[in-house]
Amino acid sequence: MKLSPRYLELQLAHTFTIARSSADIEPCIIVELEHDGIIGFGEAAPSERYGENKTTVMNFLKQVDLTRFKDPFQLDEILSYVDAIAPHNTSAKAAIDIALHDWIGKRLGVPLWKLWGLNKELTPVTSFTIGIDALDIIEKKVKEAEQYPILKVKVGVPNDEEIIKTIRKVTDKVIRVDANEGWKSKEQARDKILWLEEQDVEFIEQPMPAHDLDGTAWLREHINIPLIADENVIQLYDLPTLKDAFDGINIKLMKCTGLREAMRMIHTAKAMKMKIMLGCMIESSVAISAAAQLSPMVDYADLDGNVLITNDPFRGVTLSNGKLILNEKSGLGVESR
Amino acid sequence: MKLSPRYLELQLAHTFTIARSSADIEPCIIVELEHDGIIGFGEAAPSERYGENKTTVMNFLKQVDLTRFKDPFQLDEILSYVDAIAPHNTSAKAAIDIALHDWIGKRLGVPLWKLWGLNKELTPVTSFTIGIDALDIIEKKVKEAEQYPILKVKVGVPNDEEIIKTIRKVTDKVIRVDANEGWKSKEQARDKILWLEEQDVEFIEQPMPAHDLDGTAWLREHINIPLIADENVIQLYDLPTLKDAFDGINIKLMKCTGLREAMRMIHTAKAMKMKIMLGCMIESSVAISAAAQLSPMVDYADLDGNVLITNDPFRGVTLSNGKLILNEKSGLGVESR
Repeated sequence: MKLSPRYLELQLAHTFTIARSSADIEPCIIVELEHDGIIGFGEAAPSERYGENKTTVMNFLKQVDLTRFKDPFQLDEILSYVDAIAPHNTSAKAAIDIALHDWIGKRLGVPLWKLWGLNKELTPVTSFTIGIDALDIIEKKVKEAEQYPILKVKVGVPNDEEIIKTIRKVTDKVIRVDANEGWKSKEQARDKILWLEEQDVEFIEQPMPAHDLDGTAWLREHINIPLIADENVIQLYDLPTLKDAFDGINIKLMKCTGLREAMRMIHTAKAMKMKIMLGCMIESSVAISAAAQLSPMVDYADLDGNVLITNDPFRGVTLSNGKLILNEKSGLGVESR
Repeated sequence: MKLSPRYLELQLAHTFTIARSSADIEPCIIVELEHDGIIGFGEAAPSERYGENKTTVMNFLKQVDLTRFKDPFQLDEILSYVDAIAPHNTSAKAAIDIALHDWIGKRLGVPLWKLWGLNKELTPVTSFTIGIDALDIIEKKVKEAEQYPILKVKVGVPNDEEIIKTIRKVTDKVIRVDANEGWKSKEQARDKILWLEEQDVEFIEQPMPAHDLDGTAWLREHINIPLIADENVIQLYDLPTLKDAFDGINIKLMKCTGLREAMRMIHTAKAMKMKIMLGCMIESSVAISAAAQLSPMVDYADLDGNVLITNDPFRGVTLSNGKLILNEKSGLGVESR
């Protein structure tokens, strides 16, 4: 098995700003895993929030020696080995996991959704993300997002209310709000959310800093719409800790190390009767298509990373009025443009 | 897709007695699922404890109309349909789940352990079950079980202590104890277990009636070896309720409706840091081989249903000094004798 990573920069259509950061380009590492004449594609979209960047991903991938394994079917053995190389580095690990799954699907001649016994008609409608921006730009973005029936709005800044009012002025679409840990006290978060409830917001993602789980549990008792964990849920073992603080979880392949761990988290969240959202970073169609393969199992999708960029090097999952459309191609169902 | 069930009786080598029942033969329904020239095998081993018997299984299977589906890959759609036909009937549902998985593995040309990315070398050693019996017969059975390094001993009767003493007189093997809900008060269970701890017993399965979860939680605080849930854990949604009462769970395909649900339970139990045991009823090599496919993921196996019978119509997974040996054949890896 041969692993070849290449670095590229994803160009954002608009400067992308959330509570803690702002960017015009985002790093992306595409990996090709070649074995027995078949190439599996994977992708790492590193996030500084989790201590990763272009350099950490490339350095991690350099340490991965897959020649010791027989073939990509050995998922448990390979992924245990990769996981033990170093802690964290979750997007680098996800790149390998995704490439292995693409290879297996291609080898068996079936798309992953079929390999997993899922119903591809049950994919959800993805939300379209409106980043933090000047109010006139936000209004323009909302108008441009006409084809998307659900908006995910980034807040967690002093003028949150103005942002929401600006959007509500031009649309009555479903709005989901993502604070990205931006509210610093539980009382502030409560006041913000009680106001947002009046603006007909469906749910709130990660209102408080991840370290303040007790504050979030208090908050949940004082509001009426669901709270979805994002920065608070990285991998499987985090789930049982969230029971009192959150109603649901946002699973991202780049946080959790890939499809195999995401599947485990989906089953566990269902057992706990928590809502499940599939989210993303700014990603190409490789990683977005990978997550989309799991999407018939989840309640909410926020898989718009590839439509926020202008130079996607791949095509895979598509959208029809926001609904994720899986194809019949093997593996991830992606091909180079 | 065509589903053909046939009834047969499994002959026990010894009368099999547990705390609540006794039998010389056990009912077994083998199903053949035929589609596109491939036959998938499944099996139902109905248990009266869960309201099933030969008649309920045959009646349930008669109601299943798979002609409405395109192919066995549609696991989620087919199994949701089957599940909605009637509540319970878990072994009848498992027969269909197992047959679908066997068909898929055969169609793709891979064993299930490989399809699931597991390491087949990581299978556990199965325990060998010693049913309740006259003490001289128990001694004889223990001697006959020479090739099995781990014994699972059925208790929950007035002379539990005599049974264990008889076994400990002739062997220092690992002993696991299964009370099958046989102890009726938490104080009785505590006294029994504290004594069993001195006899070097590894863990206790289902000490108290399933309805007394509070009593079991109390019990757990007063003993020192792990408690494994059996009758208390049927399907996925039971797991979060067990956190305070049990250290682990016994998953049986016949209780949980099959491989797909078992996989969900395994992932959830791992998230909860609970120990996982794979158990069985009296079953042929079809159902035992199905469970064995999952076994690289679990801590303990009690998959001896097929070695307790004398007329197994199939061969599949084998044992080497008690260790489950998976083969390289597609699907379940079983064939008719």
